[in-house]
Amino acid sequence: MHGIDSTVTHSSSSALADLGEFGLISRITAGVRTHESVITGIGDDAAVTALSAGMQLLTSTDMLLEDVHFRRVWHDPYRLGRKSLAVSISDIAAMGGSPRWALLSLAIPSDLPLEFIDNFMRGFLTMASENRVALIGGDTCSSRIGLTISVTVMGEQFPDRIVRRAGALPDDDIWVTGTVGDAALGLRLLERGETVSDELLSRLLDPNPQVSAALALAEAGLVTSMIDVSDGVLADYGHIAEQSGVGGCLRLDALPLSAAFRRHTAALPAVPYQLALSGGEDYELCFTAPRSDREKIGDCVKKCGIAVTRIGIVTSSPGVTAVTTDGTPYSAQTKGFNHFT
Amino acid sequence: MHGIDSTVTHSSSSALADLGEFGLISRITAGVRTHESVITGIGDDAAVTALSAGMQLLTSTDMLLEDVHFRRVWHDPYRLGRKSLAVSISDIAAMGGSPRWALLSLAIPSDLPLEFIDNFMRGFLTMASENRVALIGGDTCSSRIGLTISVTVMGEQFPDRIVRRAGALPDDDIWVTGTVGDAALGLRLLERGETVSDELLSRLLDPNPQVSAALALAEAGLVTSMIDVSDGVLADYGHIAEQSGVGGCLRLDALPLSAAFRRHTAALPAVPYQLALSGGEDYELCFTAPRSDREKIGDCVKKCGIAVTRIGIVTSSPGVTAVTTDGTPYSAQTKGFNHFT
Repeated sequence: MHGIDSTVTHSSSSALADLGEFGLISRITAGVRTHESVITGIGDDAAVTALSAGMQLLTSTDMLLEDVHFRRVWHDPYRLGRKSLAVSISDIAAMGGSPRWALLSLAIPSDLPLEFIDNFMRGFLTMASENRVALIGGDTCSSRIGLTISVTVMGEQFPDRIVRRAGALPDDDIWVTGTVGDAALGLRLLERGETVSDELLSRLLDPNPQVSAALALAEAGLVTSMIDVSDGVLADYGHIAEQSGVGGCLRLDALPLSAAFRRHTAALPAVPYQLALSGGEDYELCFTAPRSDREKIGDCVKKCGIAVTRIGIVTSSPGVTAVTTDGTPYSAQTKGFNHFT
Repeated sequence: MHGIDSTVTHSSSSALADLGEFGLISRITAGVRTHESVITGIGDDAAVTALSAGMQLLTSTDMLLEDVHFRRVWHDPYRLGRKSLAVSISDIAAMGGSPRWALLSLAIPSDLPLEFIDNFMRGFLTMASENRVALIGGDTCSSRIGLTISVTVMGEQFPDRIVRRAGALPDDDIWVTGTVGDAALGLRLLERGETVSDELLSRLLDPNPQVSAALALAEAGLVTSMIDVSDGVLADYGHIAEQSGVGGCLRLDALPLSAAFRRHTAALPAVPYQLALSGGEDYELCFTAPRSDREKIGDCVKKCGIAVTRIGIVTSSPGVTAVTTDGTPYSAQTKGFNHFT
C-alpha cells in the first residue's frame, strides 16, 4: 500500500534506501519456492491457490513487534525468521490442519542492515520448507521505529479431521507434548543477564511447531480437543475447558520438565511450577482424549518422535485447578501473558 | 502471540490497561457478524472456512503504519477502519474475486482512547458488511509507539474468471474506472495546510473499492488484464505492461479528472498530470480489453453505476509513454510511491 510520508526515509543513505522497495521485494522473494497448489504466487494483486478437494480452509495470523515480542540483541535474524512463521504454523497444526501457504508483511526501519533481512528470510523460508509451506504474498513498508512482522498462515484439512478447543469431555485425559517451561525459563535467565544453556535458548528462540504429531492425532481421530500452548498450559487448557463447558485438574508432579529446566531451577522452590504452568511460548500441543485410548495416543505420537505426557483429568465441574504432589491445590500467581495489563 | 516484555504497558493506567487483552478482544469482536461460509470464526487457534465448490482462493495483505500510511490528525478512526479493509478488498476485486473473509491484527499504543478503537471497528465492520466480508480472526498486541494495522483479505472465484496482470494484448484499449488524482491532490493540500474540499478528502480518507465493477467485468470475460490503481495509473499500468510483455501509450488529455480536481489545479500547470498519473491511492481499476468490446465494456460497468474511460492503447513495443494533447511525450517526474527510497 502507498505511504503518505515519503520523507520518512528520504534522507537515509542506507543500503535499504539504495535498494528501494522493488529491489527489496526481489531480494526477499529470491529464495521462494513454489508448490503445485500455488496457481499465482507473489507478483499480482492477490495470490491464487487451490484447496485440495473436499478440504476446508484454516487461517491464523500473528504480529511480532520489536521490543514487545522480540529483541534484536537476543533474537538473531535467522531464528527470528523461523519463529515468525513457526508461531502461526503451530496454530494451524493445533486445529489438525496441514499448513500450506504463508503471507509475510514487514515494516522495516531504515537502518536495518540488509544482512539482517537476508538471514531473517533464510530462516523464514527454511521453516517454510520444513513444513511444506509456500510463501505466496505479503507487504513491505518503511517503519519509523522498530521492525514489525505480520504473518498469516493458511492450511487445509477435511472437515471431520479438524480439531477444535471445544470438545473435551469429563474424565478425558489432559495431555501435553514435549516439555513445558523451558522457553519461559530461558527468557527469565536472559532478562537477569544469567548464563542460559543452548537447550533453553533454543526453546525460546527457535520453537518447533508440532505439526506431525498434531496431524497424526487429528487424522487418527483420537483427540476430543486441542490447542497449542503459547500462554502456558494453565491458561491454554483453560481455553479448552471454557469452550468445552468443562473444568480440569492438573497434577503439578506430572508436568513434563526437561533436564535443563530441572537443573536450572533446583534452587528455586516456587519458580518451576509458575514457569511450567504459566510461562508461555512452549508451542507444544495440549489436547484431551478418552482414557480408553491411552495406549493408542502414546503409539501415535511416538511414531513422530515426540514425547507425550498425561498431566491431568477433565472434570465436569467448571474451573481449572492444579494440585501439588501431596494433593493441596496450587495457587497460580498469574494465568499467562496478557497484553495491555 | 506471547510478548517478551510485559512491562511495556504495566505502568499504564489507561482504559486499555483496565480492559486487558481479552476484554479488548471482546470489545473489538462485539459487532462481528458471521456468514454461512464461516465454519469456525474468532476464538479458536485458527478460523475454519469453506470455499464454494470449484472456486480457487485469492489472498492479499496490507500493513498500515501510523505516520507512514496515515496520521491520526487527518484520518478519523471510522474512515481509517473502512480504509484499512478497503485497500485489501480492492486487491481481491482487481483479480476478479469475490471478497469473503478478513483477518485484522492491531498493535495498539497504550494511550489510544478506547473510543478510537470502537470507531475504527465500526468503520472496519461497515466496510466488511458493505462487501459481504466476514472478520474471522486476527491478533492484538501492545505497541511501544504508534498504531499498526495489518489486514489480510481472502476471496474466491472460479479459475476461468480470475483476471491477472499478465494478459494484455497489443492494440487492446487501456481503461480506468472513476477519476484519478483526487486522493493524491487531497493529500498534497493537507500537507500544505490548505483547505480541502470534502470530495477530495473523501477520496483520500475513504476510498471505495470497485468490487461490483470488477466482478461484472471478470464474470463477463471482457478484460484481458486488470490491476487496482494504488501507486498511480502510470506505475500500475506499468506492472500490467511488464507482466504482459507489452508496452503502452497513455493519452494525458483522456485521463478522467474530477470537477473538484480541475477546480483545485486550474492554477498549477504541471501538477495535474503528475498527480493524476503518479499520485497514487486512487483505488480505481485499470484494465485492458479488445477494441471490439468497447460498447460491451461501457454497458457492463455502467450497470454498476461506475464511469469508465479509455486512456490509451497497449503497444507491442515495450515501455509505457504518456503523450500530451499535441502529441509530445510527457516526461513523468516519478513513477509512483516507493517505500525506502
